[in-house]
Amino acid sequence: MTMSGFLDARPRVGYFYSGKTANQLMGEHIRNLHVKDYKSMPVVITEATSVYDAICTMFLEDVGTIFVIKKEGYLIGVVSRKDLLQTAMGKQDLSSIPVGVVMSRMPNLITCTPDDTLHYAAQQMMRHQVDSLPVVRPFQGDTRHFEVIGRISKTTLAKAFVELGQHISV
Amino acid sequence: MTMSGFLDARPRVGYFYSGKTANQLMGEHIRNLHVKDYKSMPVVITEATSVYDAICTMFLEDVGTIFVIKKEGYLIGVVSRKDLLQTAMGKQDLSSIPVGVVMSRMPNLITCTPDDTLHYAAQQMMRHQVDSLPVVRPFQGDTRHFEVIGRISKTTLAKAFVELGQHISV
Repeated sequence: MTMSGFLDARPRVGYFYSGKTANQLMGEHIRNLHVKDYKSMPVVITEATSVYDAICTMFLEDVGTIFVIKKEGYLIGVVSRKDLLQTAMGKQDLSSIPVGVVMSRMPNLITCTPDDTLHYAAQQMMRHQVDSLPVVRPFQGDTRHFEVIGRISKTTLAKAFVELGQHISV
Repeated sequence: MTMSGFLDARPRVGYFYSGKTANQLMGEHIRNLHVKDYKSMPVVITEATSVYDAICTMFLEDVGTIFVIKKEGYLIGVVSRKDLLQTAMGKQDLSSIPVGVVMSRMPNLITCTPDDTLHYAAQQMMRHQVDSLPVVRPFQGDTRHFEVIGRISKTTLAKAFVELGQHISV
């Protein structure tokens, strides 16, 4: 009970009311969830991969966003289902267009780190109208480049929402 | 304070602890959010619309899912960005394929009603791996058909998550 933050324990005095409403506690609880505890596996391809193969990878891995890396391993772009659909509408041969041509590029990518809160990641997705964020850390200790170590998507948030709503009175 | 459900007021006796943890209260709060208060506008097309025009509508309206209706007005299908991408990968002429050929069809659609909880809608989306649900009611009083009156998507849930996390101590 004291763990909940709602009542503070005073030794020998019992409990007293901490002065917070349930809404405030809920807000605090949500702002204490971290990216590192919710991130899922990233799906990555290199920039030379064709748009056709990128679409196949998207279906095989069942994700809505793929991260694009240099062959050395650091993040250079993000390609979404929307980007690929736009390209696929054209008359071009999808197997001859490299994904590097249609992706969103660094430094215009929205990223998050393992230590960010899930709430911050959610705010970033809403603000920038993207469905997914790469979770990154400095690439081989070099802060100019990022290594992709995870993925946070709207599906991650939907799962967290379902989970939070499952706390029931016993 | 009494509104929060955490403390119950007893006239003349002051407050006593209601025996619920913050997690339980949070679960209850989330399970009290309803589809009718969160749904957004549905985007609908008729089954004769071409796949090409469906993709254009998806970009113009900036949605990930479009609902397909009979010209009489009731729901017969749902078409997602994923369905359209799969079709666009083929060699066919997209303006000659009606969306009715590539959509998911009734009775295999997952729907929700305005009185369902947002938590139920979220569970349905996760369970059936869809990004969006049509919010429906009986079509002209006929329970065999549905009228689409709204849309709940993973973006709706992401917005609700951001909102719940914004309750702060004052």
